[in-house]
Amino acid sequence: MALIVQKFGGTSVGSTEKIRAVVQRVLGYHKQGHKMVVVLSAMSGETDRLINLARDIQKIPDPREMDMLVSTGEQVTVALFAMAVNEAGFDAISLLGDQVGIRTSGLHTRARIRNIESKRIFTHLDEGKIVTIAGFQGVTESGDITTLGRGGSDTTAVALAAALKADACEIFTDVDGIYTTDPNICPKARKIDRISYDEMLELASLGAKVLDIRSVGLAKKYRVPVHVRSTFTENDGTWVVEEEKNMESMLVSGVTYSKNEARITLNKVPDQPGVAAQIFLPISDAGIIVDMIIQNTRAGSLTDMTFTVLRTDYDRAMDLLKGIAKEIQAESVTGDENIAKVSIVGVGMRNHSGIASTMFQILAKEGINIMMISTSEIKVSCIIEEKYTELAVRALHDAFALDKENIPVEEKI
Amino acid sequence: MALIVQKFGGTSVGSTEKIRAVVQRVLGYHKQGHKMVVVLSAMSGETDRLINLARDIQKIPDPREMDMLVSTGEQVTVALFAMAVNEAGFDAISLLGDQVGIRTSGLHTRARIRNIESKRIFTHLDEGKIVTIAGFQGVTESGDITTLGRGGSDTTAVALAAALKADACEIFTDVDGIYTTDPNICPKARKIDRISYDEMLELASLGAKVLDIRSVGLAKKYRVPVHVRSTFTENDGTWVVEEEKNMESMLVSGVTYSKNEARITLNKVPDQPGVAAQIFLPISDAGIIVDMIIQNTRAGSLTDMTFTVLRTDYDRAMDLLKGIAKEIQAESVTGDENIAKVSIVGVGMRNHSGIASTMFQILAKEGINIMMISTSEIKVSCIIEEKYTELAVRALHDAFALDKENIPVEEKI
Repeated sequence: MALIVQKFGGTSVGSTEKIRAVVQRVLGYHKQGHKMVVVLSAMSGETDRLINLARDIQKIPDPREMDMLVSTGEQVTVALFAMAVNEAGFDAISLLGDQVGIRTSGLHTRARIRNIESKRIFTHLDEGKIVTIAGFQGVTESGDITTLGRGGSDTTAVALAAALKADACEIFTDVDGIYTTDPNICPKARKIDRISYDEMLELASLGAKVLDIRSVGLAKKYRVPVHVRSTFTENDGTWVVEEEKNMESMLVSGVTYSKNEARITLNKVPDQPGVAAQIFLPISDAGIIVDMIIQNTRAGSLTDMTFTVLRTDYDRAMDLLKGIAKEIQAESVTGDENIAKVSIVGVGMRNHSGIASTMFQILAKEGINIMMISTSEIKVSCIIEEKYTELAVRALHDAFALDKENIPVEEKI
Repeated sequence: MALIVQKFGGTSVGSTEKIRAVVQRVLGYHKQGHKMVVVLSAMSGETDRLINLARDIQKIPDPREMDMLVSTGEQVTVALFAMAVNEAGFDAISLLGDQVGIRTSGLHTRARIRNIESKRIFTHLDEGKIVTIAGFQGVTESGDITTLGRGGSDTTAVALAAALKADACEIFTDVDGIYTTDPNICPKARKIDRISYDEMLELASLGAKVLDIRSVGLAKKYRVPVHVRSTFTENDGTWVVEEEKNMESMLVSGVTYSKNEARITLNKVPDQPGVAAQIFLPISDAGIIVDMIIQNTRAGSLTDMTFTVLRTDYDRAMDLLKGIAKEIQAESVTGDENIAKVSIVGVGMRNHSGIASTMFQILAKEGINIMMISTSEIKVSCIIEEKYTELAVRALHDAFALDKENIPVEEKI
């Protein structure tokens, strides 16, 4: 008998019929004697409907009121879910973030969970009830409703699993697990059975959209085993767990890509102490996130400063930098939106040198020029021309034999 | 400078456009320096949408979960309202029942307000904010969301006005006040300028639907002046206030009717002590409300027992009574759904005898047979055949000259 937290996303609960199907699935576990805590998102389409109402009223909706508004979506789902459990002849109770004491920071629309009171949940579980909890929401110390931002319901589920010391946290979604790469562009992509928290963190930060990066960080911190799987099949998905020995036998676990970046270069910047701060402080003050940074020294006391930002921030960043360039007497600002970031991730890299250079060789063989490189202990990312993205992903997937399961390192390279 | 509580119903906030219009109206008061507390219902159609979702899931939805579900409707409206105030350049904050400490009984879907904490509201008013509060909802001691049942937002508004000791409570609706009778069946119906709490209580209980009877009771208890008026015009509506001297100069203030009743007769009931209890206890245990009761003694030790129930309870009551009739050895049960209750109401009756008999004469003159009569200090109700309803209402309205304002009693009869 285990305590299991299950989270179902918006498409899984997108209609009353789908809610009933989810209830049947949860009841299957309940009947086996497991204690079930079910975290739900808003019905698909509902959050957008509410956001559109808000935008119709206020151009940039007040964040506090936005949270008041959109948090109703999850409230509706949990109430309907509890009714469906009752209708099926079992006991359930729905609870809001406030009612289970999910205390958060006061940063509306992007709040962070600080604390969860588990007492009320255990009381209801001990009464034999299925406890269903609204995802995505919490409250501040003063009782104002907050929401956790993109992927917030995943975070709610993992945080609850941590607070309750649950045996597992299952994230049900519309795909059946984490893949070695995007199956849409690489038909050989293979579902990964088990992946480490660190690898998943890299994958999530590099563009894999299945699991929100904050929830992975939480899972790692509190050692919550997370099972990402499909609502629509009974198949096992991918377990995100602590690093295991055999994981290292895979040099590379996944290939990922992102087309959501843009490259900006400040040309001929006078190379003086403090110049980097003069460039990047105003950018960070404007809320623009900088990913990679490269500094190339030219002859003399001039340098080129190249970095990447989110493509959605590109125009804003360019405007800002034109002013900055003048101030620091840089010659010019140039930019390129047609780039992509392709990355390989794997804990096996830690103990094997040469993975990065293998990646560069593979890309070179395909005639793909590398513009920027960034590495961590378990990943290598390259910025390339956007048009080569799919080619690069397939070539890397093939060369590292990701379609084959658990091949010992020695046989591979 | 006054403290004013204003309540707007679902049709008044049925679209983002209408919400903006309501905001402009409220801002008009705010700019004059008044402190404004605004209670809102769900956007029209929203509560029905939620109820339909629930019914699609559970035949008889769980009351606690139903409250969890439908209370989201008001939450959406107050958030949008606060955004619209902000967009107009003023400060607002939306608050839920929970956040202003509207503590209620635990009777889900029909809870009663026990207490309101006014502190947070005053804090925000002192900050210069327009405070908007979700109507219809509260929380139990244990923090479960409750709703107040039909007309609940009116009750929220009056209860808040009482707790805040507001100078007035304005109920904005889609009609422009309380009428001497239903204008749809009597073109001469006249809007009443001022009416006493007691009269309004009788009118509300006798079928007038503009103001919920519970809110009138609360207003009377805490002496809250209530102004019922139209969202769509600037005209004054009807003030519901403490009894004033000149009110008595009107013998009758209003004529009302209800087609929502049915009549049941137990024929030839053995007339013994305790027989009434044997009949009415099981009926009240079944949650069926009995309105009028008449007992006609027949020759010998037999009696006929006639009473009225809500028409929606008629079938259930008839089933129940067939069993009861056997038990108490009554001869038969007969019933009639085609009846109506026509009533006259007025505090002026208190000091004038003969009003009831005048009513009977008027009905007799029109050839309308009276089946049952019930009276209170300030009202007389008659059960008649349903088909005569409109005729009876118009005849009474004419005979008591309700189309004319404040005519001294002496001139009238």
